[in-house]
Amino acid sequence: MTYAAPVTNELIRVGVLGAKGRMGSEVCRTVEGAPDTELVAALDDGDALTGLVDAGAQVVVDFTQPGVVMGNVEFCVRNGIAAVVGTSGFDEARFETVRGWLADAPSASVLVAPNFGVGAVLSMEFARQAARFFESVEIIELHHANKVDAPSGTAARTATLIAQARAEAGSGPVPDATTTALDGARGADVDGIRVHSVRMPGMIAHQEVVLGSADGEILTIRHDSMNRTSFMPGVLLGIREVRSRPGLTIGLEPLLGL
Amino acid sequence: MTYAAPVTNELIRVGVLGAKGRMGSEVCRTVEGAPDTELVAALDDGDALTGLVDAGAQVVVDFTQPGVVMGNVEFCVRNGIAAVVGTSGFDEARFETVRGWLADAPSASVLVAPNFGVGAVLSMEFARQAARFFESVEIIELHHANKVDAPSGTAARTATLIAQARAEAGSGPVPDATTTALDGARGADVDGIRVHSVRMPGMIAHQEVVLGSADGEILTIRHDSMNRTSFMPGVLLGIREVRSRPGLTIGLEPLLGL
Amino acid sequence: MTYAAPVTNELIRVGVLGAKGRMGSEVCRTVEGAPDTELVAALDDGDALTGLVDAGAQVVVDFTQPGVVMGNVEFCVRNGIAAVVGTSGFDEARFETVRGWLADAPSASVLVAPNFGVGAVLSMEFARQAARFFESVEIIELHHANKVDAPSGTAARTATLIAQARAEAGSGPVPDATTTALDGARGADVDGIRVHSVRMPGMIAHQEVVLGSADGEILTIRHDSMNRTSFMPGVLLGIREVRSRPGLTIGLEPLLGL
Amino acid sequence: MTYAAPVTNELIRVGVLGAKGRMGSEVCRTVEGAPDTELVAALDDGDALTGLVDAGAQVVVDFTQPGVVMGNVEFCVRNGIAAVVGTSGFDEARFETVRGWLADAPSASVLVAPNFGVGAVLSMEFARQAARFFESVEIIELHHANKVDAPSGTAARTATLIAQARAEAGSGPVPDATTTALDGARGADVDGIRVHSVRMPGMIAHQEVVLGSADGEILTIRHDSMNRTSFMPGVLLGIREVRSRPGLTIGLEPLLGL
Repeated sequence: MTYAAPVTNELIRVGVLGAKGRMGSEVCRTVEGAPDTELVAALDDGDALTGLVDAGAQVVVDFTQPGVVMGNVEFCVRNGIAAVVGTSGFDEARFETVRGWLADAPSASVLVAPNFGVGAVLSMEFARQAARFFESVEIIELHHANKVDAPSGTAARTATLIAQARAEAGSGPVPDATTTALDGARGADVDGIRVHSVRMPGMIAHQEVVLGSADGEILTIRHDSMNRTSFMPGVLLGIREVRSRPGLTIGLEPLLGL
Repeated sequence: MTYAAPVTNELIRVGVLGAKGRMGSEVCRTVEGAPDTELVAALDDGDALTGLVDAGAQVVVDFTQPGVVMGNVEFCVRNGIAAVVGTSGFDEARFETVRGWLADAPSASVLVAPNFGVGAVLSMEFARQAARFFESVEIIELHHANKVDAPSGTAARTATLIAQARAEAGSGPVPDATTTALDGARGADVDGIRVHSVRMPGMIAHQEVVLGSADGEILTIRHDSMNRTSFMPGVLLGIREVRSRPGLTIGLEPLLGL
Repeated sequence: MTYAAPVTNELIRVGVLGAKGRMGSEVCRTVEGAPDTELVAALDDGDALTGLVDAGAQVVVDFTQPGVVMGNVEFCVRNGIAAVVGTSGFDEARFETVRGWLADAPSASVLVAPNFGVGAVLSMEFARQAARFFESVEIIELHHANKVDAPSGTAARTATLIAQARAEAGSGPVPDATTTALDGARGADVDGIRVHSVRMPGMIAHQEVVLGSADGEILTIRHDSMNRTSFMPGVLLGIREVRSRPGLTIGLEPLLGL
Repeated sequence: MTYAAPVTNELIRVGVLGAKGRMGSEVCRTVEGAPDTELVAALDDGDALTGLVDAGAQVVVDFTQPGVVMGNVEFCVRNGIAAVVGTSGFDEARFETVRGWLADAPSASVLVAPNFGVGAVLSMEFARQAARFFESVEIIELHHANKVDAPSGTAARTATLIAQARAEAGSGPVPDATTTALDGARGADVDGIRVHSVRMPGMIAHQEVVLGSADGEILTIRHDSMNRTSFMPGVLLGIREVRSRPGLTIGLEPLLGL
């Protein structure tokens, strides 16, 4: 990813929670490697959060566990440290709780994103924008053979976003003339959108949204994630932008300026 | 399709049965347009088969109905006319019956092909050849939104051919770590091979066979049929080759010389 | 295309210029077939433009020739008829002339679009939006073998839009380590963006924009136009929307509300 | 890759030349990891070839340099060790020299393969087989942005194989109506076949052969190599099979039993 780093003389002081985990350790490397960020604290299970304050962290990145992330976020808000959160397990109730903390700290800021892949987020956003112009849409996602769930979280969320956009545009259900089908042939139904999950050794993480109309136009938005580090540009974008967005931001989309 | 027409001075005399049907009428146009064939009889429902003999037909193309095709084939065999058959409804019992007729007419020849798309047949053949070299394989087929069955006949047959090739090579089941899935997400199971059916306005007839191995190699064989006339080159190939293959030939594969 | 037609009791009265041409005749059929439009005049070479006024046309669609289109547009502006123009040959000088006419007729409106394919326009727009987030981008366009120019106008325009977006974001040139290349292997250079043109019998009109970044994310935006009628939804959108946009509108993009 | 290892009680004794190189070190790991092979010698620059004999190597794998590989192969032939060679730089003159050595050692065997990717070799073979059935064919290859040559060696070889197959079938030149083109738009010409080279950060090694005919059939054979280890299954196949093929074998194709 190549959006320019903001020109500045001061490095952003970053703390990482879950620093020994798979994602957290990647974040540490990324923060150390970027020209405008500095790793000042790398904490994991058992380390005291006060280490973040002692180190003067301005932004904290949290890739921990659903069971501890809320305490971490509250600590950051109370101590004026911006938080970039990739830990899963957030629902509307949790978002409300975070908003409550932020109400008492108007200049604090929290970014919670279910997906830090800039390409993945763009492809979801484009699928949502295009949805109302086409009669139908289906999703094919392809992942490595060790994945235990189907469809992927990204595919399910893409389907939901598309279904909402179609409903807002009054699009009606997608056409489907199938009368005879083998069980499973037509994929899973997520909010009325068909999703097909391929599991294949050699694949990594791939998704295709296919939109079509009877007049013969097909639009395909494909995203390929060729390795795990492809989430780091999004994390870095979050670190750079979070402090300029007081309050709670959900998802990377608002930071992409689309 | 561009395989050269055999150089010859005499035109092949062709009769068409089902000449008013969608496929039959295309065959008539194709036979009239090709440089080495001549349309001598175009019969449909109610016309007497003796018209084929009167016209001196050397090869008959049959795109009729399962209910009448056997009578047509028997007439051709008895009268020394080679038959190229695209009508559906053939099973092993019917093939045995045809072989019985042919036993009494050693120089007669019948070609029955479930698919005259040369590209479709090639892609099935390549998928079969490649199957044993990859840990896993899945099929994605995409058709227009008016198709009533899923998966397509071609996809089901491709899956069966792949499963046979894997069994012969001792490949074992394809890997699948899925433990949590929405109903249908992982597609239909055809002989142990997963098949995904997309239905989309604007599409015509498309199929992708994706093969992968854990070491990171992916092989994809994709076939697109952009309109109905794409079956005609295969029919023409059948017309040209059927007489040089006495007896019963099933499928276009033997004529492709792979 | 399925965006809903605005609910209204009155039909839009449409005139077509170039009504006997390939595109114009399609427009006539489309206008006659749509539930909210009515064909009131179908003029071609030699017909007097006053026929548009006599017929009470509210919107005129022009698919004529570069040599006559300017006169047509001026006539429409002078007579208070909105114009939807698909004729090629517009440059900045022509746009200035049109703006001059419109200055004297503040409620008049003209839409000039180089491409009425909604999917094509969306894919250009998405490519433009995504450009600044990726280190590199190339374009592959595939068309039927009778096309005489390469690259296609759409591909060239897409490259230019991408180059502009990258320049605005300060992206720098795309990386390219090639030191030894066969002539032409790396495609054409359009404003610094590589464009590859495939010409293939069986293809119709297809384009892929591939964006990649070194961290392993690839985003592909593919558009397939399976037949010529795929431009009609965009023409219909223009007919419906042009009168609500006084002045000159260039391109379909503003009407898509992205 | 999953073709079963032959059941046997004895391990194949393997020596590796160029054992410290990028490919050689991968081969060492692969030989040590496979259930039916044993690494008995790992030699590099400066080590005496007699080490192969001392270690009782039955098969030697050579990933060295064009300047030394001929000496290595001669040593193997003279000492009754089968050779599997991936080093580049072989031409017909070198093959003749190897055949000369083998003439004096009828039971010796040498396999020289320019590409050990089983999927890549299959895709070349399928492209060659399909070539004569389609009016036209073009190749698109996509590699990472650090690649210095264009087109890739595999793409150039694929084009040559296709051109030969078309010539043998009397196919004539591919159709191309282009009269106006930007320099490079139509790709490089390799034996009359157009080849397009995309260079993109995030890509690894990918190739698409697209075949089309005017009747609307498109066949696409795509190969993706997602990482470097994807060559090892082919090397292992060579190790297992080379001794059963006395004389010189060029390319992996004969071992795939297509």
